[in-house]
Amino acid sequence: MTITITAFERSPDGGRGLARDTRVRWALEEAGQPYQVRLVSFQAMKEPAHLALHPFGQIPTYEEGDLVLFETGSIVLHIAQHYPGLLPDDANARARAIMWMFAALNTVEPPILELTTAKIHEGDRPWTQARLPLVEERIRARLAQLSRHLGDAAWLDSAFSAGDLMMVSVLLRLKSSGILDEFPNLAAYVSRGEARPAYKRAFAAQLAINKRD
Amino acid sequence: MTITITAFERSPDGGRGLARDTRVRWALEEAGQPYQVRLVSFQAMKEPAHLALHPFGQIPTYEEGDLVLFETGSIVLHIAQHYPGLLPDDANARARAIMWMFAALNTVEPPILELTTAKIHEGDRPWTQARLPLVEERIRARLAQLSRHLGDAAWLDSAFSAGDLMMVSVLLRLKSSGILDEFPNLAAYVSRGEARPAYKRAFAAQLAINKRD
Repeated sequence: MTITITAFERSPDGGRGLARDTRVRWALEEAGQPYQVRLVSFQAMKEPAHLALHPFGQIPTYEEGDLVLFETGSIVLHIAQHYPGLLPDDANARARAIMWMFAALNTVEPPILELTTAKIHEGDRPWTQARLPLVEERIRARLAQLSRHLGDAAWLDSAFSAGDLMMVSVLLRLKSSGILDEFPNLAAYVSRGEARPAYKRAFAAQLAINKRD
Repeated sequence: MTITITAFERSPDGGRGLARDTRVRWALEEAGQPYQVRLVSFQAMKEPAHLALHPFGQIPTYEEGDLVLFETGSIVLHIAQHYPGLLPDDANARARAIMWMFAALNTVEPPILELTTAKIHEGDRPWTQARLPLVEERIRARLAQLSRHLGDAAWLDSAFSAGDLMMVSVLLRLKSSGILDEFPNLAAYVSRGEARPAYKRAFAAQLAINKRD
C-alpha cells in the first residue's frame, strides 16, 4: 500500500530539517519504505479537508490504505512496529526503545519547546530577555541527566532504535542555541544520528522542497 | 510476575491525583492487574538507586520481572499492549488509540505544563501576572481544536481506550484553573473518565497514601 505523508509547502525553518515531517521521513528511510509527500500551505492546514486528517491543523499526517494517523510519535511508532529496522526483537528491549521515544517527546522536548515559544511567540515581550536564562536552565537540567545516562555509549539502549531517532530529532532543535555543545557526549550523539544514511536522505528530501524556486 | 510501581511518598499535590503514578494506577485498574507500590521521597528520587531505574529522577517507574520502565506514556502503552481493556482489537483502531496517547502527551500537555511551570517556578517573577494570559490563550487554542474534534462523542475514537485515559489525565491538570469549564463537552468528557470505576480505585489508592498521618 502506498504511504503518503504531509509536509509544509514552505517550512518555517527554511529547510533546516526541524519540521516534524523530517522525523517521519527518517523513520521511513530507516525502514526502507518508499513514500509520497503531499505539500500543505499554512492556509490549507487550517481548512476542513486537512483538519479532517489532523484535528490540530498541523503536519505531518500519515495515510496508508484505510489508516490515517497524525502525531509524529504515533506515526514513527507505527512505522517501527510494522517495518524492520527501528525496534529490537527482544520484547523488553523493544519496550525500552519505545520508552525512549516517550522520554524524548514528553520529558526532553517540552522545555525545549518552551524556548522556541519564548523566542517566537514572546520574542517582543518586555520580559523575554530576563526570562530566557530560566528557560535555558530547565533545558540544561534535563540534558545533564540525559548526558549522565548516555555516558560514552553510542545509543541510548545498545543498538540504534526509534528511541534514538526521536531523541536525536528533539536535540537537533537546540543546535543553533549553543546549549548542546555544553554536553559533548550529547553533541556527538546527535552527530552520530545525522551521519546515518537514512537521516541524510530524509534531510535532503525536505531540503529539496524548501530550497526550490 | 509481580508488578511494582513507584510513587511519591508525599505527592506535591496533596492527593489531588495529578501525580503521574495515578495514570499508571488507572491503567492497571482498567486492565485488572494487581500491583505493588514502593514509595519514594524527594531525596531518594535523586539518589543512585532510583536514578538507576529512572535517569530523570522522577516517578513513576514500572518493574515486572526483568523489565524496568520509566516514562508514564511508555508504561501505560506497555500495560495496554500486554493486558486487555485499553486498546481495541482492530489494528487501525489500535494505532489511532495510541495516536491519541501521543496527542495527549505531546500536543495537549506541553502548553498545560507551561502554565504549571509559570505558576510554580516563575510565580514570584515580576512578569508572571502579565504573561499568564498568553500561556492560557495557547491552552485555549488547543482545547478549542480538541473540543471541535470530540463534538458530542463520548470518547475520542468510539470506545474508551488508553488514548482517553491519557487525554483525561492531562486535562485533569486544568480542573482548578477554570479553563476546562469554558469547553463544556471537554469538562463532561473528563467527568466521564473520573466516573469510571477503575479511575475511582486508582484515585482512592493514591489518596490513601497522601492523606495518611
